[in-house]
Amino acid sequence: MALLRSELGHVLRTNRLRQQRTLREVSAAARVSLGYLSEVERGQKEASSELLASICDALQMPLWATLREVSDRLAAQEPGWVPDTAEALFDDQFAGVS
Amino acid sequence: MALLRSELGHVLRTNRLRQQRTLREVSAAARVSLGYLSEVERGQKEASSELLASICDALQMPLWATLREVSDRLAAQEPGWVPDTAEALFDDQFAGVS
Repeated sequence: MALLRSELGHVLRTNRLRQQRTLREVSAAARVSLGYLSEVERGQKEASSELLASICDALQMPLWATLREVSDRLAAQEPGWVPDTAEALFDDQFAGVS
Repeated sequence: MALLRSELGHVLRTNRLRQQRTLREVSAAARVSLGYLSEVERGQKEASSELLASICDALQMPLWATLREVSDRLAAQEPGWVPDTAEALFDDQFAGVS
């Protein structure tokens, strides 16, 4: 079963690493403890809504964009999921071409 | 500050009502207490990831679709947000026309 905290942790961690920032930097900016942020990123702790908002602020990611990424990750794990319409059309067009 | 639990609660409640189901029905299907579901819907309690998954299952909404709705609601609250490209083009075309 896909869990929100695991996917959310993955998205937060991926974005922090993309920004080349350390746990120490982001936890200080978000005013959460380093241990808390680390557990949230590893999907081991549920982030409270308030602290999630602080972490998103510290990462300069709006909450809506964070949740969109989480939603996209979860959707991609669904059987039969297709990434987007353009890609689907492309696949149709070249179906059978090898 | 927009909080995940408030927006999530709103989306869960809206979908339950759209299905014309009672708190009692959905809480029984999700195996959570009626009081818990009610508090989650009102944004007064953080749903654990496991119980959120159960509630989504009970509502027959994938978690990704639930989060997409939450993300869309949050995005719509951002200043300067435009619902879609077509509307933006329409607005540009008629800018200054009154």
